[in-house]
Amino acid sequence: MKYEYLTNIPLDKAKADYIAFLEAAGMSGRTERICVSQSLGRITACAVYAAVCAPHYNASAMDGIALEAKKTFGATETTPVRLQEGDFVRVDTGDPLPEGCDAVVMIEEVVETEGGIMLYSAAAPWQHIRQIGEDICAGDMILPSYTEISPAAMGAMLAGGVLELTVMAQPVVGILPTGDEIVPPTDSPKPGEVMEFNSTIFSGMLTLWGAKPRVFPILRDERETLESGILEAISECDALLIGAGTSAGRDDYTPALLKKLGEVLYHGIAIKPGKPAVLARIGSKPVLGVPGYPVSGIIVLEELFKPVVFKLLNKSLPEVPMLQAKISKRLNSSLKYREFTRARLCKNENGYTAVALNRGAGVVTSFVKADALIDLPQNSEGCEAGESVNVRLLRPLAGIESTLSIVGSHDPLLDEAADILRRENPAYSIASSHVGSMGGIMAVKRGEAKLAGVHLLDPETGKYNMSYVRRYFPEGDAVLIRCVGRVQGIMTHPGNPCNIKTFSDVAAVRYVNRQSGSGTRILCDYLMNKLDMDTAKLCGYTREEFTHTAVAAQIASGTADAGLGIYSAAKLYGLDFIPVCNEEYDLLIKRGSLDDALVQRFLEVLRGEEFKRRIDALGGYVLEAPGELRQM
Amino acid sequence: MKYEYLTNIPLDKAKADYIAFLEAAGMSGRTERICVSQSLGRITACAVYAAVCAPHYNASAMDGIALEAKKTFGATETTPVRLQEGDFVRVDTGDPLPEGCDAVVMIEEVVETEGGIMLYSAAAPWQHIRQIGEDICAGDMILPSYTEISPAAMGAMLAGGVLELTVMAQPVVGILPTGDEIVPPTDSPKPGEVMEFNSTIFSGMLTLWGAKPRVFPILRDERETLESGILEAISECDALLIGAGTSAGRDDYTPALLKKLGEVLYHGIAIKPGKPAVLARIGSKPVLGVPGYPVSGIIVLEELFKPVVFKLLNKSLPEVPMLQAKISKRLNSSLKYREFTRARLCKNENGYTAVALNRGAGVVTSFVKADALIDLPQNSEGCEAGESVNVRLLRPLAGIESTLSIVGSHDPLLDEAADILRRENPAYSIASSHVGSMGGIMAVKRGEAKLAGVHLLDPETGKYNMSYVRRYFPEGDAVLIRCVGRVQGIMTHPGNPCNIKTFSDVAAVRYVNRQSGSGTRILCDYLMNKLDMDTAKLCGYTREEFTHTAVAAQIASGTADAGLGIYSAAKLYGLDFIPVCNEEYDLLIKRGSLDDALVQRFLEVLRGEEFKRRIDALGGYVLEAPGELRQM
Repeated sequence: MKYEYLTNIPLDKAKADYIAFLEAAGMSGRTERICVSQSLGRITACAVYAAVCAPHYNASAMDGIALEAKKTFGATETTPVRLQEGDFVRVDTGDPLPEGCDAVVMIEEVVETEGGIMLYSAAAPWQHIRQIGEDICAGDMILPSYTEISPAAMGAMLAGGVLELTVMAQPVVGILPTGDEIVPPTDSPKPGEVMEFNSTIFSGMLTLWGAKPRVFPILRDERETLESGILEAISECDALLIGAGTSAGRDDYTPALLKKLGEVLYHGIAIKPGKPAVLARIGSKPVLGVPGYPVSGIIVLEELFKPVVFKLLNKSLPEVPMLQAKISKRLNSSLKYREFTRARLCKNENGYTAVALNRGAGVVTSFVKADALIDLPQNSEGCEAGESVNVRLLRPLAGIESTLSIVGSHDPLLDEAADILRRENPAYSIASSHVGSMGGIMAVKRGEAKLAGVHLLDPETGKYNMSYVRRYFPEGDAVLIRCVGRVQGIMTHPGNPCNIKTFSDVAAVRYVNRQSGSGTRILCDYLMNKLDMDTAKLCGYTREEFTHTAVAAQIASGTADAGLGIYSAAKLYGLDFIPVCNEEYDLLIKRGSLDDALVQRFLEVLRGEEFKRRIDALGGYVLEAPGELRQM
Repeated sequence: MKYEYLTNIPLDKAKADYIAFLEAAGMSGRTERICVSQSLGRITACAVYAAVCAPHYNASAMDGIALEAKKTFGATETTPVRLQEGDFVRVDTGDPLPEGCDAVVMIEEVVETEGGIMLYSAAAPWQHIRQIGEDICAGDMILPSYTEISPAAMGAMLAGGVLELTVMAQPVVGILPTGDEIVPPTDSPKPGEVMEFNSTIFSGMLTLWGAKPRVFPILRDERETLESGILEAISECDALLIGAGTSAGRDDYTPALLKKLGEVLYHGIAIKPGKPAVLARIGSKPVLGVPGYPVSGIIVLEELFKPVVFKLLNKSLPEVPMLQAKISKRLNSSLKYREFTRARLCKNENGYTAVALNRGAGVVTSFVKADALIDLPQNSEGCEAGESVNVRLLRPLAGIESTLSIVGSHDPLLDEAADILRRENPAYSIASSHVGSMGGIMAVKRGEAKLAGVHLLDPETGKYNMSYVRRYFPEGDAVLIRCVGRVQGIMTHPGNPCNIKTFSDVAAVRYVNRQSGSGTRILCDYLMNKLDMDTAKLCGYTREEFTHTAVAAQIASGTADAGLGIYSAAKLYGLDFIPVCNEEYDLLIKRGSLDDALVQRFLEVLRGEEFKRRIDALGGYVLEAPGELRQM
């Protein structure tokens, strides 16, 4: 039952070798003839020369009169020249220069008199005339080879009488999803069915790169089916991506088949995620075996297939924008692999902090949330908190800088507030990460976030938040902003079949807990302590989820019977809810950040009518002067 | 015959007022429902929430066995636990967790024995399980409103069971070209016909912004035709661009018509080019009168219509990347207008130098060549050479830095060399400007270009180039690189109807000259001086063109009879050519630039076979050790 990858090739070597391998096999981009009007964003396959001059005739560059310059010689303020109809021709901008004329006088300088006109200055020969070829001369090179066609370039070609040109054809890239467990996207998947959305992600990436994706139906993990499917697809495409159901599972025929049908360069690249990639060819066509997890797939495509697409298009790869950032927490890394970790960036007085996101290869939302990829080299054991790391930017810095980072305790109201903020000005964003109330306090302290959602019960006083702020910010440099009051309670199955009445009843059922450091976990521990409950005897005490909705989802799925959480989460999943206590959910902020324009806008959102409306719809909240500072 | 614009509104005011004017009239973007798989690059119209959890079931995260963790408790290296079939279930990654199981053990840790397996360590509950909602929980917000949809976001939506979503509709923007002189693009235009390619340029710009262009047939400049054309177009579109044939000519009905059909906010903006723009609406739909010259049109669209399109899409306008650069030459500017001038950028030891390109509003190629727009504020009289100015970047700096700038004398061989260079590596470009040999020397001296093409006859010695280098670089910090020997001669009509035999014969015909400072002009002056010809008596001596092909084009069009130029230009236009002399066309470079990697690549191109092949095809050149340094 053991399986090993054949190779563990460093990424840069794999990239370079793959292109060389494909070129040695005769890979090259196709070209095609298209209309200039359809050529936006395409790449010239060869130089484009003007067929005609632009302008193609000598044209008046002004509204006015055309004449022979000689006739105006000697005209001054004191010795005007008088001309009669016949000596000149009235012209508009763009009119051809009439026969015998070699100058244009602007209408503003023409004084009408009876039976003719007066000019008070002499015209220079060829003045105010757009001469033939002022813009382009026939035979001039308009665009060199391998140039991306801009709107202005389309105009320049048409101006030069070029109506058609030869461009690099968009490579048709086949995407072949495989796997017995794979089903097309659906809103009602059955257990064991894995939705196939990688082909949609890959199609998007290919489209952005200038290729034409073509998605084939899902193939079952049977040798003959795969073989005939691959052969059919490759005959209709310029390149092929084969999505593997699993990386090295029992049914992984891809590498063996590619060895039979073509040639495999490497199976196994020294990157994480993404190591099981297969770099191969069939004939001179590139064929890539792509790991099944979406994050692995995205990284493998970006690193190993994008250069191939750009080569087929004769485009130069744009430089990857890099940045130095300090990492917020120790990041482990294997000596064996170069590791890419998705991260949020937060700007603070010391530059940028990179906060690593969920490293799970299946967590596609992490790519939606990520600002950057932390790039840890092979032969590194990881980085300590505060160490500088190289990160690759995934979106423009300007966007990152107009993003308000809110960490700490999870509450869906943060997403609602983010949505309201964007609807008022789409330049602004809120990035919220759920690290629990304690995690939020530390993140604000370290400058990794502007705000933190906190609901921390002080077991000694039975009060919320204030004592924590005093403890962690003894110099008084942080304050609390009121957000909401909310009801915490026990979520359980609809109809309460386990008959839970108070918190002590959870001891008799399968519980699902929150992660330590979260306000809800602290509440759980406080309640258990008060009731003298033994954590070792609570079934599921060590089973931790990170959000209220995740706890609700586990209960709704039947794998647990009860968990602490807020009313809105229970409502969302149709669960029963037994209220336990009211708590204060506040926002922690450093005093120095209060004047930040984006923070101010956010506080206005909290104070607004739309926020109240949405909070009411979620249910289980009490609003009391949201957005106002608490007396410290 | 006098015409004045109604208004001269500062650009920033015009922009802000126009959006406010349109919003007050009720302008807002439409929304539509589309499939997630078709949503790449679109903008969410409202927040998107997950319909199902992802994963939607507890799934094995590894290939291995699933079991109840309890059964493994106590297993160590010395006290392994033995399990029989029935105690565990074999699972692959992605398989649903079987009933009764709460942990997965990796296949690598499973030791097969007869009738069962051995485990040497205990499993923790919920280990190696992708729990329900690990990625997304049902009800979680996946994307807030007004978010551009990336490939990963498409994947996240599908993972969350969202198959359809509401996005901002792409605004349909009608483009209505008008004018009696306007014809569709053609490769054989007649004099007086102006090719209509603005709609192609505008369509490209609109497409890049996310709008849907719709080009209507060209309308004649007749009041009724225009009126019914505008009404028909606006009924089918979300916004309208009306391309004016002329800005303020006799037949400009647009502003008057828009006043009748809707409301005109401003006619006349304080920018150059672009001042005759008309900002209007019909109902709540934006209608923009766009000046007819392509460069004016591009600037008006970028400045005044892009914000409207982005508003209709609820997209935030990206920040314009700015840079400080020193300008190479005095740039005049009117106090009345904010002026945008296209420029090339050249990086040197002092930062960036901006070299203004042709300011003609009809010169669309200038936008193809431009790296940046110099933005001179209103109330400025211009800038002196060497002064720092704000420039807007039109392409990424990385591309500008991998561009070799070559100025000086015009020769098509530079374009051919540029093309060869790009075909070898599309990351490299050559930007060549034609400023004459003397202009080239000065540009290299001032650091505005790396190389200059020169062919300068020393009238005293009758030799080429060397004495100029010694004079302008007395410290020996510049050298000459051999490029080509070429034949200069008199270009004249086919069959030589003017019977030109030697240079003195041009005195009897219509001559067309080159600009002063060009090597060919210096040759002309040298020849006239040697022959004692009177420049005042040479018809056309003051008529200056900037390139060999432009001189050839004038002769070919019949507006001149003779001009000095190189053989390849005469050949291109089918002209007769009477050789006058052989000259040395060299490339001037500062010694310090010789080691530049891009310069080295360029010299290799000059030495290569492909360059020789192309030069032979152009005709009239002699190659003698091209790419080698001349002995100074």
